[in-house]
Amino acid sequence: MSGPLQIGLLVFPRVTQLDLTGPAQVFSSLPDVNVHLVWKRIEPVPSDSVIMLTPTVTFADCPQLDVICVPGGYGTDELMLDEEVLAFLRRQERGATYVTSVCTGSLVLGAAGLLQGYRAATHWTAVDALPFFGASVSRERVCIDRNRMTGGGITAGIDFALTLVSMLRGRAAAEMIQLRMEYNPAPPFEAGSPDTAPAAIVAAMKERVAPAQARRLEFVRKAVGQQG
Amino acid sequence: MSGPLQIGLLVFPRVTQLDLTGPAQVFSSLPDVNVHLVWKRIEPVPSDSVIMLTPTVTFADCPQLDVICVPGGYGTDELMLDEEVLAFLRRQERGATYVTSVCTGSLVLGAAGLLQGYRAATHWTAVDALPFFGASVSRERVCIDRNRMTGGGITAGIDFALTLVSMLRGRAAAEMIQLRMEYNPAPPFEAGSPDTAPAAIVAAMKERVAPAQARRLEFVRKAVGQQG
Repeated sequence: MSGPLQIGLLVFPRVTQLDLTGPAQVFSSLPDVNVHLVWKRIEPVPSDSVIMLTPTVTFADCPQLDVICVPGGYGTDELMLDEEVLAFLRRQERGATYVTSVCTGSLVLGAAGLLQGYRAATHWTAVDALPFFGASVSRERVCIDRNRMTGGGITAGIDFALTLVSMLRGRAAAEMIQLRMEYNPAPPFEAGSPDTAPAAIVAAMKERVAPAQARRLEFVRKAVGQQG
Repeated sequence: MSGPLQIGLLVFPRVTQLDLTGPAQVFSSLPDVNVHLVWKRIEPVPSDSVIMLTPTVTFADCPQLDVICVPGGYGTDELMLDEEVLAFLRRQERGATYVTSVCTGSLVLGAAGLLQGYRAATHWTAVDALPFFGASVSRERVCIDRNRMTGGGITAGIDFALTLVSMLRGRAAAEMIQLRMEYNPAPPFEAGSPDTAPAAIVAAMKERVAPAQARRLEFVRKAVGQQG
């Protein structure tokens, strides 16, 4: 590769901001990299929470990326039906070294037709949506299948980004960033996965997310219909 | 406590954005909470990387916070000498339930005189600065001493925030958020601490950060001088 690495993270309304800001912190720590925040227009976009995200480049002005990454969040529902977004992803895919996602971002890759025949990861509450797009479900935290790299839910973005850095620039580059970020995590509880969390917590979370899951599947079905 | 929990995260130029966005994601997942991004003025502030951060409230308009949190980053050098910032922190401290920081944010609490006689954590490259402010060094990832809660470097902010949520709202509330964020981390390498990283990586990082460490200590000494 000649010139700086070009990495683009998709920004969109109601993105789960940590899906994007975690990898952005990792990638920005590389020397010789341009990290772009890409959206239709250059105007601040509300995330899922208090953080506003300001895109740095529009779809039209975005250079060919070496890495395109789609973060997740409730806003992915609408993206699955957004032809402008899907066309941008398909166009970038043709020249990208890696086509990637964090969390429910993989469903947008799926809606763009870019996971047909691939294994992929997503947020644990969204795994039932992947097969609609011809993808097989991986429960790995970071799933690599050829040049598709998809992360699990939200915080998996940090593990995903460090893994990707090691593939692009070598293990030492990733270890330097991990050390700088003091990433030796120590979760205070054992509740990070439905396999380890207390049963009552899993049940309560399943009940809480059920409406969002139902809404998501409606959008998935419409997206599959659009694909014809 | 009556009414929503008021949590304020300090925004400033060259903040390490993940120090702030990690805890912001955790706190925003609570029901019945107002998360504020606080700075002198309401205008977008450049972080250490591609992310611009848009404050939601000024120092002047900020309500009394239940939790004040100072994230870290290279910009903390200037904050240690910024009387407007230090006065804001001292004013908030008087009514806050918890006075907190992530990474080198603890040095700003120290410069405000708020860690005198407390144990505190900070980024592993900054531990030598804490004693100048009368604090004793903790190498815990999340250090709790009375109502001071200070996290280690960058990614420690997520562990810090989950721990704080458990103290404010109970363990189940923290576990729900941990499950939603799928926070069962799996770092790809063992390089997250100077105690575990390969020696060559630690040596290379120490060499890289030496100029920033020297600069930091100059600011620390000036801040101690200002305190008289």
